Amino acid sequence: MSESQFRGVIPPVVIPLDENRKLDLEALERSINRMIDAGVDGLFFLGSSGEVAFLTDAQRYHVLQEAVAMVNNRVPVLAGIIDMETMRVVDQAKRAKGYGVDALVATAPFYALGGPKEVERHFRAIREHTDLPLFAYDLPVCVHTKLDPTMLVRLGTDGVIQGVKDSSGDDVLFRWLCIENEQAGHPLQVLTGHEVCVDGAYMAGADGSVPGLANIDPVSYVEQWRAYQSGDWERVRELQDHLARLMFVTRVVKATVGFGAGVGAFKTALWQMGVFNTNQMREPVQALEGEDVQAIVEVLKREGMM
Amino acid sequence: MSESQFRGVIPPVVIPLDENRKLDLEALERSINRMIDAGVDGLFFLGSSGEVAFLTDAQRYHVLQEAVAMVNNRVPVLAGIIDMETMRVVDQAKRAKGYGVDALVATAPFYALGGPKEVERHFRAIREHTDLPLFAYDLPVCVHTKLDPTMLVRLGTDGVIQGVKDSSGDDVLFRWLCIENEQAGHPLQVLTGHEVCVDGAYMAGADGSVPGLANIDPVSYVEQWRAYQSGDWERVRELQDHLARLMFVTRVVKATVGFGAGVGAFKTALWQMGVFNTNQMREPVQALEGEDVQAIVEVLKREGMM
Amino acid sequence: MSESQFRGVIPPVVIPLDENRKLDLEALERSINRMIDAGVDGLFFLGSSGEVAFLTDAQRYHVLQEAVAMVNNRVPVLAGIIDMETMRVVDQAKRAKGYGVDALVATAPFYALGGPKEVERHFRAIREHTDLPLFAYDLPVCVHTKLDPTMLVRLGTDGVIQGVKDSSGDDVLFRWLCIENEQAGHPLQVLTGHEVCVDGAYMAGADGSVPGLANIDPVSYVEQWRAYQSGDWERVRELQDHLARLMFVTRVVKATVGFGAGVGAFKTALWQMGVFNTNQMREPVQALEGEDVQAIVEVLKREGMM
Amino acid sequence: MSESQFRGVIPPVVIPLDENRKLDLEALERSINRMIDAGVDGLFFLGSSGEVAFLTDAQRYHVLQEAVAMVNNRVPVLAGIIDMETMRVVDQAKRAKGYGVDALVATAPFYALGGPKEVERHFRAIREHTDLPLFAYDLPVCVHTKLDPTMLVRLGTDGVIQGVKDSSGDDVLFRWLCIENEQAGHPLQVLTGHEVCVDGAYMAGADGSVPGLANIDPVSYVEQWRAYQSGDWERVRELQDHLARLMFVTRVVKATVGFGAGVGAFKTALWQMGVFNTNQMREPVQALEGEDVQAIVEVLKREGMM
Repeated sequence: MSESQFRGVIPPVVIPLDENRKLDLEALERSINRMIDAGVDGLFFLGSSGEVAFLTDAQRYHVLQEAVAMVNNRVPVLAGIIDMETMRVVDQAKRAKGYGVDALVATAPFYALGGPKEVERHFRAIREHTDLPLFAYDLPVCVHTKLDPTMLVRLGTDGVIQGVKDSSGDDVLFRWLCIENEQAGHPLQVLTGHEVCVDGAYMAGADGSVPGLANIDPVSYVEQWRAYQSGDWERVRELQDHLARLMFVTRVVKATVGFGAGVGAFKTALWQMGVFNTNQMREPVQALEGEDVQAIVEVLKREGMM
Repeated sequence: MSESQFRGVIPPVVIPLDENRKLDLEALERSINRMIDAGVDGLFFLGSSGEVAFLTDAQRYHVLQEAVAMVNNRVPVLAGIIDMETMRVVDQAKRAKGYGVDALVATAPFYALGGPKEVERHFRAIREHTDLPLFAYDLPVCVHTKLDPTMLVRLGTDGVIQGVKDSSGDDVLFRWLCIENEQAGHPLQVLTGHEVCVDGAYMAGADGSVPGLANIDPVSYVEQWRAYQSGDWERVRELQDHLARLMFVTRVVKATVGFGAGVGAFKTALWQMGVFNTNQMREPVQALEGEDVQAIVEVLKREGMM
Repeated sequence: MSESQFRGVIPPVVIPLDENRKLDLEALERSINRMIDAGVDGLFFLGSSGEVAFLTDAQRYHVLQEAVAMVNNRVPVLAGIIDMETMRVVDQAKRAKGYGVDALVATAPFYALGGPKEVERHFRAIREHTDLPLFAYDLPVCVHTKLDPTMLVRLGTDGVIQGVKDSSGDDVLFRWLCIENEQAGHPLQVLTGHEVCVDGAYMAGADGSVPGLANIDPVSYVEQWRAYQSGDWERVRELQDHLARLMFVTRVVKATVGFGAGVGAFKTALWQMGVFNTNQMREPVQALEGEDVQAIVEVLKREGMM
Repeated sequence: MSESQFRGVIPPVVIPLDENRKLDLEALERSINRMIDAGVDGLFFLGSSGEVAFLTDAQRYHVLQEAVAMVNNRVPVLAGIIDMETMRVVDQAKRAKGYGVDALVATAPFYALGGPKEVERHFRAIREHTDLPLFAYDLPVCVHTKLDPTMLVRLGTDGVIQGVKDSSGDDVLFRWLCIENEQAGHPLQVLTGHEVCVDGAYMAGADGSVPGLANIDPVSYVEQWRAYQSGDWERVRELQDHLARLMFVTRVVKATVGFGAGVGAFKTALWQMGVFNTNQMREPVQALEGEDVQAIVEVLKREGMM
């Protein structure tokens, strides 16, 4: 296991809004402190769960500015530099660096797809323009490209990337990524984006996790990580079963599908638990209402979160 | 057939670069003039073929500023406002308007997908923030959502959008879009993004075409449009066969796939024909070389373009 | 245009069932005669619309036996030999031949997918075991492989296949198939499986069409083909618009999706028009009822079919 | 944990062929005995790895007849009844039963897709025609439908199915299936089809595994199962890492993709290990040769299998 500072539980931070759909700084600070107090090992801003796609550039950098100040070096801050193609990502990287973040997280190019040569060149080009630690973000559901494990380890060995956040849902390739990474001397910090199968990812040798659900229950993810570190697999599994059932907050939503059901459920849970002041979402997504809110509350109660 | 100014052949403008991958203004003006002289009815900047995804915001607006000046009101200028989600698109819309373009072109949200409710709300939200004519850009290969014909006609009837650029490749739904549009009184200008099946789209009742290949052979597309207007279907068909064979420039590429093979072939053809000074592409795409260039030249010669 | 007997309008025959979901021979003969009287140039049994996937082998060969007798050499009979992989298809081919059909129609392998080498070898292996004219059936929606135009023309030049039934919905590749076929001396009879864009396929140079909707309105498809043969493109287009609107029978269905909505709507229309005695479907598909039937009737009335 | 006889390690049996691509009974018996001697808890014939799609019906029932005799009640025999749609599957079920198998395994309908109603009706219709224990086989890579966990548990509670073989690769839904199954009183035996992430599936509560790789290394899978039963998670994990590296036999293949690379690598390994007499595949798949064979041997040696 590496000595990197980028290991353990690093939640992607969900962003609270007020009733006018503006950034709610008070709730943001409450949520950040709640996660740090629970013992998380880092925080990832401007990820998919952090509504990076829905924020204008001005809003993105407002979030980063406030977040870095609120975190105040208590844990490392990772920042998503999510944009369509290479030079737009480089643009985001340069600006994010100015706000004092500790690492950057970039996906493969999306919108106009190419082949594996373009994907690899993309990460190498970003590195040529930035010096912060860089994580490759594997998220085919948004990016429509699966990152190849062999390429990732090659990028790690060459010092292009320092780690991977794997939200691919492809646990076979994740295992093979972990194996190839070990065989190469562990150049990469390999983080799973799973919420529901983190125990399997730890079995595979993950260096940490980046679960959106940790916004709701950071304590259990932190305890699970520590149980893993101490070899208590039955506890790892037991906590995972609780968290898998808690993730039903996203399964009970009936009014919409996709992002609005996923992050929409997280925001609704945080609102009902008193961490957020609303469950507002950004355009074009609407906040969940009525029966959906009630169904989410029932899941929270069943799992002892309320 | 409507009296709209947005009809006929409206090429998406491919953007020339110099050897340093910087915008080549001389070549851009030559290409624009060449298309206007051929009789095109409009020009579409910052579309997919216009490398919108590869341009930083500063580069995007540099292109628009120069393009509007170069076109100088000879034909209408449409501008892509392509970004991930609603408020980022609105941001692009506001800036594009400042440069004096005549219409805006927006896709559905991409990156974080939702359902049909979010797609419809997205276009309505853009309209609330903009007053320029707005075209919906249906491009599932990049956007991963197919726009529903019934929704499009409803948006047209409600004055939200003025037209559609259909690059879906789904000719059944295109036909149904044309039929539903007629039944509603033709609220939409329906433009096909096809290069190879424009004759079929005209059979279906399209109001025009937006073919990337018209950068290479604008004369044939303009003649095809005029043949269609005069009911000379055999000429429409004959020109289409030529253009379908000319599109083989994108099929003969072996070195890469996707965008680099498509727009890469267009740039290489324009370079070899003397319209562009190079065939440079933006990161992470590499310019075509060697055998690929030779194969493209052979297609051009076979179709009488060189 | 080739002198092949496999050209013009060749409907895939929809199979009528009685109330007990058994083959309804009386209705089958009525429907066959109705299409032959309308002037169709061939009939295709055991295609997707012919419920080939839903029939046991015994039922498949019962259909073929009766169909060959009913058609009685008035038009050529094509038979689908649809099965999962090569040797199962060969098995089907041998049996179909015994019933006196004129040509065979086979898809690429499905279930266990391979690459292009396996697809090409598959058709060559079928040819080694059969001597009837063989058509390649390009149907990615069921088969999950798109047949490559260059491979198809190579198979044609080598005498492996005599033609293609293209139900891919990819009109660009269809155009290129037609062009490559011409350049090779027209070894293939290229038939479109479109219902809604047959005019575009004729523009591309198709040798005929295989539209399921011709079970409902064979007269219009036959007239359209003849208009195409005489160069009356305006009539081709006008008939296509009618047929495209008639195809709304499949769009108005609300109770289900996929095959049950498509062929289910065809059966319901034929039942309401008095050609079939029921609209029964085979397990696990349920016959359409209530509002769906009413909506289909309205489409039929609007298009003058009732 | 249920007392069902269908639990533990149940390999899908890979079928050996001789040089003429005929069933090699000697090698089949050797491989069956090797797996039973290693302690497997059942054997699954006519699954995807068992080339069910490539066998004619006559060949399928030849395999079953011989297999049942060779196994001779030492372990339960499960038989795939894989066909396109419901009544063809029922046909297969009736015949398989005659050969004395202990359970049947059926996928959702494929070829002509419907919606969730048709999928559920399909399994209920099979049950109406059969009385043997029935497993639902979730294999979207071949079937193009993902089975919904809630539907599966409902089918279990209603006595329609006795279990699930999950080869979906969707470990989130697998976890939720296990959770819903527990909440319903464990009506289903839930078996994972993973080779590489079996430890994660055991963490989730799987009742067993059906790994094709167990044809090559049955001893390790059996030991892994027993370690899981005794709570020795470190040993479960260690064995999994070995098996994940052994699965590289399928990753080193360069000559083809898909089934030919997967099962082709298994056959090549078994041949090189002396269990099979050849690595022949059925049409249209070709046996692996040269460098691919060598690369597979190297993996086997590295993992101590040769």
